[in-house]
Amino acid sequence: MSAGRVRKEIDHALLSFVDRQRPGVLAISDDLAPLLSALDALLAGGKRLRPAFCYWGWRAAGGEDIEAATGIAAAAASLELLQASALIHDDVMDASDTRRGQPSAHRRFEAMHREHGWRGGAAAFGEGSAILLGDLCLAWSAEMFDTSGLDTEALRRGRPVFDLMRTEVICGQYLDMLESARGAGTVERALTVVEFKSAKYTIERPLHMGAELAGGTPEVVEALRAYGRPLGIAFQLRDDVLGVFGDPAETGKPAGDDLREGKRTVLVAFTLERATPAEAEFIESRLGDPELDAEGIAQLRSIIDGSGALAACEELIDRYTEQAYEALRSAPIASDARQALAELAVAATARRV
Amino acid sequence: MSAGRVRKEIDHALLSFVDRQRPGVLAISDDLAPLLSALDALLAGGKRLRPAFCYWGWRAAGGEDIEAATGIAAAAASLELLQASALIHDDVMDASDTRRGQPSAHRRFEAMHREHGWRGGAAAFGEGSAILLGDLCLAWSAEMFDTSGLDTEALRRGRPVFDLMRTEVICGQYLDMLESARGAGTVERALTVVEFKSAKYTIERPLHMGAELAGGTPEVVEALRAYGRPLGIAFQLRDDVLGVFGDPAETGKPAGDDLREGKRTVLVAFTLERATPAEAEFIESRLGDPELDAEGIAQLRSIIDGSGALAACEELIDRYTEQAYEALRSAPIASDARQALAELAVAATARRV
Repeated sequence: MSAGRVRKEIDHALLSFVDRQRPGVLAISDDLAPLLSALDALLAGGKRLRPAFCYWGWRAAGGEDIEAATGIAAAAASLELLQASALIHDDVMDASDTRRGQPSAHRRFEAMHREHGWRGGAAAFGEGSAILLGDLCLAWSAEMFDTSGLDTEALRRGRPVFDLMRTEVICGQYLDMLESARGAGTVERALTVVEFKSAKYTIERPLHMGAELAGGTPEVVEALRAYGRPLGIAFQLRDDVLGVFGDPAETGKPAGDDLREGKRTVLVAFTLERATPAEAEFIESRLGDPELDAEGIAQLRSIIDGSGALAACEELIDRYTEQAYEALRSAPIASDARQALAELAVAATARRV
Repeated sequence: MSAGRVRKEIDHALLSFVDRQRPGVLAISDDLAPLLSALDALLAGGKRLRPAFCYWGWRAAGGEDIEAATGIAAAAASLELLQASALIHDDVMDASDTRRGQPSAHRRFEAMHREHGWRGGAAAFGEGSAILLGDLCLAWSAEMFDTSGLDTEALRRGRPVFDLMRTEVICGQYLDMLESARGAGTVERALTVVEFKSAKYTIERPLHMGAELAGGTPEVVEALRAYGRPLGIAFQLRDDVLGVFGDPAETGKPAGDDLREGKRTVLVAFTLERATPAEAEFIESRLGDPELDAEGIAQLRSIIDGSGALAACEELIDRYTEQAYEALRSAPIASDARQALAELAVAATARRV
């Protein structure tokens, strides 16, 4: 097995789908071209983690190789359009300027409005366009899944997982926003957000869906989910660490972006548990401040690190990752799938700080 | 046939679907209850036009009565969730305060944020929540369609229309926003927006989808579309007239809301064609002004009426409606479907000013 070959097939399926939509969209009006360009730019990046987990869930459950099986590449790649929708809407909600190292979708449309000197607010035009582009990606994700070419029986088995996954991630994102608004969260509440906004959505459900598409036995499905659940949590905890300490060149986001956005991550909850009252007060006063500068970020980082929260988070990542490996070792699956899933576990949780 | 009986079955299918989703959502977290309440409030209103056209497309193409056929009520009602998504996101984009006579979804969540005195901006929290609720409705619409209970073959025939319809309405909404931003539009461009944002989406595609779900012949499908196309345009032109001259008690929107939002409707394009240079300048200076007051609205209304644009729009509504009736008279369909579609044509285009 080669991760590169799988990635290539997933990319091909994804870009072919968008290319098939292109003429129909432009037949409505040439003025729609900027929507397509913004989507092209976004899809040029991304690690295709969710399609990869879906594909290896399929393989682990006995599905054929990606080059032999009709439809699995497209069904797996449809998750990348779901993710595109989530990212585009997320960036509107968080007022993020960049995504994958490029301007976020709403900023692209905002700039277009300014360049043309159009009427009304440029920011509102940017947000409106991005809301619609995210909607288009959400609709196309389902369309791509349904028209993947997998047979009706496979789709009938996989669709409930696809449906559940969408509900979970949307609900998880609402809870995430709610936690930022309420503040003063607990580790437990932060972990609920992690579970639904990210862990299940990124790893457990893609694996689960892939396995169901392949008609996997309940034993295989359960073994994959037992691997995916802890790995998904470890993945999001790593993402939280990167959101505070990550290199912008790696994350595609400005340094300390999560702090500026006031994300109530497990890392923050750990810090508030461990910090002195003065430190906690400082955190509460600066977290979510859109004006937070490099110095403010450095101060927050220093408190997070000094409190032992960073170490506690790394320990938790190690523990969850180890749980995932343990589940993987005993999973009743073929050895190439086991090896690929072990490599994906590294990719999903590796330290990149 | 009784419109009331059809409406009751559609409502029942819609509310049953939401009720089936409810426990799963609340099992993720009780904190998600406000999303469900906002959806309940929105779904309490609405004329269910799209489900009705879908159902009568089905009947016209030989489908069984709503009480006898499994699944058509749910498949038709799934369009109401698509519409809920469009309305919720539209209200965010237009910064509308009300919908169906109640606070719009984003205003509900904004008020919730204020009441609790939460952190960060209340408006941003409101918009973020509404974006997510709209996403949930869009995802659930597809889920409701797929799980309607119609057989696999029927769904396979109807799904391409469902898919096309989503792409068309999202693209149409983008073009609508673009026209408002660019200003100085033409009647032709305004008609393109009408076609995709509203006419096809509200009437032609629901009929088309219903007929395909029933396995209608190409002749029936084409006859229904020939009725639906002009009727859809007439419907949107009526909506444009109501958006300027309508009674808030009827429209559920403040008086003259389209003027305040700067919508570039056919009615506005007609006015600009007919107005004196001074009047045109006045229109361009006031249209889209969020501060537009009762006096400004009265002045704009007077120019629109005085220019002959209102009469021209009414004439166009009559002409398109007449075209629809003509197509309906010669359509090769059963008489009860013909009668129901004639009544729907009245409901969709009736003067309510």
